[in-house]
Amino acid sequence: MPSTINNQQWIYRQHPAGIVGPEHYELREEALSTNLSAGEVLLQSRYLSVDPYMRINQSLKPTYNELPHALNTVQSAGVVAQVLASSVEHLKAGDWVEGMLGWQTHARVHHSGLRKLDPELAPVSTALGVLGMPGRTAWFGLTESGRPHAGEVVVVSGASGAVGSLVAQFAKRHGCKVLGVAGGKEKCDWLRDTLHLDWAIDYKTHQSADTLSQEIKALTGGVDVYFDNVGGMVTDAIIPLINRRARIVICGSISQYSGGLDTVELGPRFLHHMLYQRATIQGMLARDYVHRMDEMLRIVGPMVKRNEIVFEETVVQGFAHLPATLNRLFTGNHVGKLLVEV
Amino acid sequence: MPSTINNQQWIYRQHPAGIVGPEHYELREEALSTNLSAGEVLLQSRYLSVDPYMRINQSLKPTYNELPHALNTVQSAGVVAQVLASSVEHLKAGDWVEGMLGWQTHARVHHSGLRKLDPELAPVSTALGVLGMPGRTAWFGLTESGRPHAGEVVVVSGASGAVGSLVAQFAKRHGCKVLGVAGGKEKCDWLRDTLHLDWAIDYKTHQSADTLSQEIKALTGGVDVYFDNVGGMVTDAIIPLINRRARIVICGSISQYSGGLDTVELGPRFLHHMLYQRATIQGMLARDYVHRMDEMLRIVGPMVKRNEIVFEETVVQGFAHLPATLNRLFTGNHVGKLLVEV
Repeated sequence: MPSTINNQQWIYRQHPAGIVGPEHYELREEALSTNLSAGEVLLQSRYLSVDPYMRINQSLKPTYNELPHALNTVQSAGVVAQVLASSVEHLKAGDWVEGMLGWQTHARVHHSGLRKLDPELAPVSTALGVLGMPGRTAWFGLTESGRPHAGEVVVVSGASGAVGSLVAQFAKRHGCKVLGVAGGKEKCDWLRDTLHLDWAIDYKTHQSADTLSQEIKALTGGVDVYFDNVGGMVTDAIIPLINRRARIVICGSISQYSGGLDTVELGPRFLHHMLYQRATIQGMLARDYVHRMDEMLRIVGPMVKRNEIVFEETVVQGFAHLPATLNRLFTGNHVGKLLVEV
Repeated sequence: MPSTINNQQWIYRQHPAGIVGPEHYELREEALSTNLSAGEVLLQSRYLSVDPYMRINQSLKPTYNELPHALNTVQSAGVVAQVLASSVEHLKAGDWVEGMLGWQTHARVHHSGLRKLDPELAPVSTALGVLGMPGRTAWFGLTESGRPHAGEVVVVSGASGAVGSLVAQFAKRHGCKVLGVAGGKEKCDWLRDTLHLDWAIDYKTHQSADTLSQEIKALTGGVDVYFDNVGGMVTDAIIPLINRRARIVICGSISQYSGGLDTVELGPRFLHHMLYQRATIQGMLARDYVHRMDEMLRIVGPMVKRNEIVFEETVVQGFAHLPATLNRLFTGNHVGKLLVEV
């Protein structure tokens, strides 16, 4: 192996005021030393993740992090990579791992930050989806905060996304009646025909939260669990429909990520509905369940191996397309997990 | 005793679009039969309650009740009354009881809806305050939904009111640092000087939620438990200041009761803060803890008897002033529990 390797990196250069795109990033090349210190592993990235939370990290206001993602550093991201060289026994050249390697083609990192993958269990790309952070978010968000019971009505916003599509399927397995809300006919057809949800609504066919609310009420009668990935108009429509002791899980507010986290957006004051129904809103984050990853994998892994879970992936080819693919999260029409393969 | 007694009643006549007042009520007299059926008791009202929730019951939209308070019926209300005549052994003429008798000078009711009071424990009027519905709301709202711990920061809105002033004192007893938010210098002086809260803020000195938020942040550093009686601008100011795993208790939204429950009000979208802090919002109602009244009385009763709790009462004299006194809840400058004595 040569003493250095050409490493391409996407550098986060500029805060996006609205939609994020290539103009906020710069492609850089560096000569990465292949010389391994004790405990280190040399990796080649194969699947790089784009996730909505990346836009939270870029917000200029305090979020779950004290400071926004540092400018002029590699965009942080989950990556599935293959081992090129290793200084540790349990990882060998050719092995698959997952870790927060960032948007770069190669990385030399300490092994302790890596999760070794079993390619026999499922395609390794699932370590960024159903068997990774989105799967963990969906599983624990639904089971710990949503606490669904058979016969209850579960509504999922962003239902065709990486997390939403899993929440919807997990809720079906709990014996719930599930409504998926998504944008566009194609996504809604997929929710009904492929995920076999009880109902799907294209929120884009509604001009106002009021008519959306009426349609949701007509279909469901009322909502016991609302798993919210989106916020905004969809949430405005659902909150007046909550049933007694409803659980509202705040997993994301994607509708606000393109500027709305930095600049105050207005919406209806709804806290009186919480009072009327003695309902609960709970915010949750994937990071709170990192230590319970084994528990999720023990349950969801076999479901995936038995082909009982639809885990659609939209895979874009080429490292060059990373920033544009991040943009697609907020403007595109993909379903399931969006990934870049190199 | 004569076969009938002259009973004065305040009849709810008209839905208030904004502030409620005498124009929405009509004083009626009826001849009430004093003839007792088995189990019945004849009562003379002594203390009649006015409570913010009365405005929720008048909302034209579904609330915790399916239908609004019926027009052309006696205004429902908690009342402390004295027994004039009784058909049951455990209640004798002169005994004190509390029940949902409504705004009327007399009532003939079945004994099962009454709670017998012990005048030795505390003034009987406290059955409408610290040892009644407001006390139950404060105790269980704080302990069950707020779950305060020693050293945490508890913020109470509507802190000088019947519920808020008790929540603030209970939180102090839990070892918390307590900030009371109220309207006007007088109320804030009372919160500091009489209730001995750590901090008090007059929200009326602020033109915007932003400057109020800055003052709260400067004083507290951040908020672990927010007990909300008020909603609106005060809540807008506090939500961006919540700490990790904060608990927000929605006990009331008084700022919206004069029309804002029927007509949508706009405020900042804040659910992303719930996500960042993995915080919880929980709505609660006094009625959910009716079956645990004995538990509250066992704990809070002795505190009251030992004079460890300030339970300020503002007592208005005269049945004629009931509707105007209800209005004072939303415009007045009383502290503690507002009552009418007849």
